[in-house]
Amino acid sequence: MNLLVLEPREIGVPLPRSDRRVEHVRKVLKKGVGDTLAAGLTGKAGEPCPLGTARVESWDGAAMAFSFVPERESPPLRPVTLLLGFPRPIQVNRILKDLTSLGVRRILLAATDLGEKSYAESTIFKEREFRRPLLEGAEQAGNPRVPEVEVHPNLDAALADLGAPGSGEERWALDPYRAETRFGTLRAEAGPGARAFVLAVGSERGWTDRELDALGAAAFGFASLGDRILRTETACAAAVTLSLAALGLV
Amino acid sequence: MNLLVLEPREIGVPLPRSDRRVEHVRKVLKKGVGDTLAAGLTGKAGEPCPLGTARVESWDGAAMAFSFVPERESPPLRPVTLLLGFPRPIQVNRILKDLTSLGVRRILLAATDLGEKSYAESTIFKEREFRRPLLEGAEQAGNPRVPEVEVHPNLDAALADLGAPGSGEERWALDPYRAETRFGTLRAEAGPGARAFVLAVGSERGWTDRELDALGAAAFGFASLGDRILRTETACAAAVTLSLAALGLV
Repeated sequence: MNLLVLEPREIGVPLPRSDRRVEHVRKVLKKGVGDTLAAGLTGKAGEPCPLGTARVESWDGAAMAFSFVPERESPPLRPVTLLLGFPRPIQVNRILKDLTSLGVRRILLAATDLGEKSYAESTIFKEREFRRPLLEGAEQAGNPRVPEVEVHPNLDAALADLGAPGSGEERWALDPYRAETRFGTLRAEAGPGARAFVLAVGSERGWTDRELDALGAAAFGFASLGDRILRTETACAAAVTLSLAALGLV
Repeated sequence: MNLLVLEPREIGVPLPRSDRRVEHVRKVLKKGVGDTLAAGLTGKAGEPCPLGTARVESWDGAAMAFSFVPERESPPLRPVTLLLGFPRPIQVNRILKDLTSLGVRRILLAATDLGEKSYAESTIFKEREFRRPLLEGAEQAGNPRVPEVEVHPNLDAALADLGAPGSGEERWALDPYRAETRFGTLRAEAGPGARAFVLAVGSERGWTDRELDALGAAAFGFASLGDRILRTETACAAAVTLSLAALGLV
């Protein structure tokens, strides 16, 4: 945890000792009443998310309350959107945490034609309860902003949600079979024209021809990440990193 | 598991039903006697590692034996070496698996000045038993080759092991404090001169000034991965990916 991330409504409110932030402040940072630490306020897209200083105002053995003094607005998230086929439910929290730490602005999760049907029935997708891994990613990155996450019943719904590409927006589906180029090589040659990326990564068994056609019709190009097979988490981190490099951000 | 990876000594030898490869072949691939599947033989650096076809020769409910017909030599690992400060022991297997899947050729693990002293006492570093995550990374990538892994008591020993840079070898330490450039931006501008990379990633608390000086003396430049703090796994994947892009391999 590199930043204490608070919701605006949590300022001044006693948080229970079981709260992982309270545990971290007490046990790792070893802070008590009157001590200060770097903190930020999180919010939805478009809302202010100031960085500043929190102070431990009270600790009674059962709960801890913080005050917060804002200092500056936090840097924006990266202009990168990721469209991802439902991963294994056990991997979702880790993937969302990692993508948040990398600064991805928007994540669209979609059931895919070849995806395990049972994944779509998992409570993690049905209940859309992603708040915790997003906050953990923000705490890791040192920036309180969290991405928007949407869940779609299929690729078509996700593509409809994306709409038409914005100005300077590049769309790339990472798929070894329809790839016309290597994503990293392409990016190195592309120069500074791109201003935003939308990336599509399939689920374990990839996309069907029907889905690849739909991606093509939605202005996605097709690229590979080389001739080694990466698991979803690694492929997402690699594709996002190469996009950030093309944008001059890493 | 995208490839059945066997040790040469395992050909024709009954493997117990508890072996994760036997479990995978039976339960996920649903193969039995006479069925074939893509396979590869693993070996040490410099040894042949053929890709080919395995056949289930026997299954008696307790053990399964495979034959193997080699077809072609597997592609070489990537010319990327990673020098990594001891991570949390609980993360080591995952990091080694990921780095193997990305094709890293050599991994040097070293205790660092600021690293938790308890990490160095962990059996995972003392016993150097990394075979399983390396094989899992090879199974994921579809290439039976595994990196060399060495464990060093401190950075100086690891740097001595590295020796002088080879021709076309670039050395970069990822460090936000001494960074002179962004690693991704640098790579995009560097062109095709580099033929190999050695990357250094610190442990959670980073490097001391003494260690940074030692890295500089060993021909490491200093670069950052942007202004967000990434956990070790994500930073390693990002730095390796950018190196592979510079080499035209992703």
